[in-house]
Amino acid sequence: VAGNTNDRLQALKDILAEVTDLSRAAALLEWDQETYMPPGGVQSRSEQISTILRLSHVRFTSDEVGRLLDQLEDDVAKLPFDSDEASLVRVTRRDYDEATKLPPDLISEIARAGSMAQPVWQKARREANFSLFAPYLEKNVELNRRIADAIGYDERPYDALINRSEPGMTTAQLEEIFAELKRVIVPLAADIARHADVVDDRVLYRGFDPDLQLAYALGLVKRLGYDLERGRQDISTHPFSTAFGPGDVRITTRVSREFFNECLFGSIHESGHAMYNQGMGQNIDRTPLWGGASPGVHESQSRFWENLVGRSLPFWRHFYPSLTATFPEPLRGVDEEAFYRAVNRSYPSLIRVEADEVTYNMHVLLRFELENEMLEGTLKVKDLPEAWNTRFKSYLGLNVPNDREGVLQDIHWSYVSFGIFPGYTIGNLISAQLMEKIRTEIPDLEGQIEKGQFATLLGWLRKNVHRHGRKFTPNELLERATGRPLTAGPWIAYVQQKFGALYGLQAVKR
Amino acid sequence: VAGNTNDRLQALKDILAEVTDLSRAAALLEWDQETYMPPGGVQSRSEQISTILRLSHVRFTSDEVGRLLDQLEDDVAKLPFDSDEASLVRVTRRDYDEATKLPPDLISEIARAGSMAQPVWQKARREANFSLFAPYLEKNVELNRRIADAIGYDERPYDALINRSEPGMTTAQLEEIFAELKRVIVPLAADIARHADVVDDRVLYRGFDPDLQLAYALGLVKRLGYDLERGRQDISTHPFSTAFGPGDVRITTRVSREFFNECLFGSIHESGHAMYNQGMGQNIDRTPLWGGASPGVHESQSRFWENLVGRSLPFWRHFYPSLTATFPEPLRGVDEEAFYRAVNRSYPSLIRVEADEVTYNMHVLLRFELENEMLEGTLKVKDLPEAWNTRFKSYLGLNVPNDREGVLQDIHWSYVSFGIFPGYTIGNLISAQLMEKIRTEIPDLEGQIEKGQFATLLGWLRKNVHRHGRKFTPNELLERATGRPLTAGPWIAYVQQKFGALYGLQAVKR
Repeated sequence: VAGNTNDRLQALKDILAEVTDLSRAAALLEWDQETYMPPGGVQSRSEQISTILRLSHVRFTSDEVGRLLDQLEDDVAKLPFDSDEASLVRVTRRDYDEATKLPPDLISEIARAGSMAQPVWQKARREANFSLFAPYLEKNVELNRRIADAIGYDERPYDALINRSEPGMTTAQLEEIFAELKRVIVPLAADIARHADVVDDRVLYRGFDPDLQLAYALGLVKRLGYDLERGRQDISTHPFSTAFGPGDVRITTRVSREFFNECLFGSIHESGHAMYNQGMGQNIDRTPLWGGASPGVHESQSRFWENLVGRSLPFWRHFYPSLTATFPEPLRGVDEEAFYRAVNRSYPSLIRVEADEVTYNMHVLLRFELENEMLEGTLKVKDLPEAWNTRFKSYLGLNVPNDREGVLQDIHWSYVSFGIFPGYTIGNLISAQLMEKIRTEIPDLEGQIEKGQFATLLGWLRKNVHRHGRKFTPNELLERATGRPLTAGPWIAYVQQKFGALYGLQAVKR
Repeated sequence: VAGNTNDRLQALKDILAEVTDLSRAAALLEWDQETYMPPGGVQSRSEQISTILRLSHVRFTSDEVGRLLDQLEDDVAKLPFDSDEASLVRVTRRDYDEATKLPPDLISEIARAGSMAQPVWQKARREANFSLFAPYLEKNVELNRRIADAIGYDERPYDALINRSEPGMTTAQLEEIFAELKRVIVPLAADIARHADVVDDRVLYRGFDPDLQLAYALGLVKRLGYDLERGRQDISTHPFSTAFGPGDVRITTRVSREFFNECLFGSIHESGHAMYNQGMGQNIDRTPLWGGASPGVHESQSRFWENLVGRSLPFWRHFYPSLTATFPEPLRGVDEEAFYRAVNRSYPSLIRVEADEVTYNMHVLLRFELENEMLEGTLKVKDLPEAWNTRFKSYLGLNVPNDREGVLQDIHWSYVSFGIFPGYTIGNLISAQLMEKIRTEIPDLEGQIEKGQFATLLGWLRKNVHRHGRKFTPNELLERATGRPLTAGPWIAYVQQKFGALYGLQAVKR
């Protein structure tokens, strides 16, 4: 590649801008598929998405990108680690290696295995019959091993897989964190279960007008700082957030008359994701640096607003008066503290996606352990349901009545995707670790939240997290923002304190 | 290119499928831009659309396509003209030549001229000051000439331009048709103007609830045959129809409380476009054969349903009872025949897009004449406003008060696009020519419409027009469907009969 550093950087950026445009277009095609597309559009839409993603992949994995990266790594060697240029080359190299390390045959085989396994998983789940699905899961385990081998790893095969979504994380780091969580959560959840009658959440099921819920939720997330000039809210079966550029970051939600939490906390959650994307720097737009640092970091932003802000007492001290004005009937006779308690009710349950703040991470821990053991061959696929049920009983105290509500509940294992689950817990931990730091830097945080003022808080997140996009790995980002890599301590302290108080638990009150 | 005919056909089809997917994706990006995109999305969206259209153009104009076409033209030489294979090669060749004949420098210059001229045209129009815009129009005329030269023509430079949108049409054919129209419409419009008080349309301005209008219009177009499993209706400032594949063909509409026609007739018009796309054969999907035969033929389908069906008396005999049930207040005291007369009121007006059935083609004729004269140099740009105003007076009897409502009203001349306007009139003529034939093949048509039965009619259009997509040129399509190429006779007979009766004109009653 001829020319000077700037020419080469520009050549790389031109390709990356094209790749970004294509993937953003694909994201809009997917958004439309989930929101407005008529039923007849399925076939053409899948053709369009597959063509666009293929072109994007071909362009990104071209030899030209490889050659530019080889030269640019020398060019930027003396630039600061966090400069836009050095970061662009470093992160693009990481993506390029990941995209080119898997041989095309393996990529096709993975796609094929996924599309064959998914309908079988659906049937097996419907019939609560794990044995139907077992041969497909065996194939998926084998393919996950081959992915790990193709990518390479020093210690544990899971290292290769976790690194694909949470760069820089190791199996050992996660094992240590999960062990610490287990020591605390298992007894805490059991303690809460013994005091279950302290919290009454029946108010949430009294019936709330759906249109009013949608309007209230949208008004509320706007107050948090979700910019509707650069976003919008639509309805979809499964809520999500998606971004087509700095000026167009959307959320979807769903609404149930019968259960209040779905729409409001769902909207806060998705707007947490969306505010992350809305805060990414214009300087990194149309490059691989524009995006979430990892699924875990993305989840930290949604959980931060949903749980640490949206399920806090000062938050409801501010919003409850307008909520009761909107829904006078169902909220009659319930004060803000009772409502705060209701939205924080904790109890062991079978289904991960319905789990509360305290027990959620145990669902993830279970899957992390089982994925690792299957990958390393210490657990046979045929023994998976028994392992699931035994550990579920030991961690959450519940008997799993059938595989539909047990080992078959998540779609994830029907495609080749080990290493995804830990991101959910990483997100929870990061949110608490950031909050611990924020409390030292914004001492008046609770007072501000109680006044409905979120600008200082959002400003801190923008400065320390959002604007960097993918420049830093999760651990690097946390080091810079809080002085430490990922650690479970702040989250443990948070749930002990919050739920200890909520349920009046003596043991953990210190 | 090695292999046999089938291999080469498949190789061509693979490329064309990719090109189709990209252009359909771009169409969705544009649909979203007009319907749901937040204001902040403009910048990223234009990047995405421009990247996708560029990739699509590059892929389609590649040497590989040229080589495949060269060989395939021999391969399919003995196949029937209307076979899928021969048609694919023939139409792809036409598109390929058009896309490759313009040198890249000229293409860039055209794009640049358009983006420079548009803001100036907007300002000139706002200030009703043609002289601001004149130098840009001079440049555009010059570029239109260079396009004509690059494409080539036998007789008249306009032949090259009209062929880009209406393949097979010649300037001479259009001149003959427009001369015939002028002979009849100028006196007819004047005659109608003298009897203006015969038709009263004040009922249309009595105020109609917008939500009810939208629901009624959607229900009505569904009854016509617009399939909502493969389509949907949304709101946009400028109504349009767009297609992302056989199973996803959408319409947009707008609604005004103050003026009834906008939503209902707009929805019928757009659903006419949409039913055309919904009727195209699966056998030609993802190829250049899938699409409208020309803008004129597309317009024939929208006008067919809007005017020949939707503004007919049998149509309102069927729908008026449900319309009065939906809008009892504004329709009080108005019977179906009075309502039929109201929606057909005709009067000379200044603005093309607001013109009625009778006068509309005169607006087009004027533009066709002026474009031709500018292109051939017999009319100087500086003399355009005077020519416009003089002819407007002579054709429609109105004094043009200023250039905003005169020569500056349309956006078309602000970009390089001579040859577009005739399509609107071609559409009107085709709709009447098809209807004349349909009446001989479905003698009971009026009775069916009065019963709200549209399936036989839609079936005829599907069989004779829709399923062919772009296989045939407009004249070829008409030859096959009606036994004649495009002709003005049926449309002239239609308006003379309909408006003669409506306005009680003796002269044209025979």
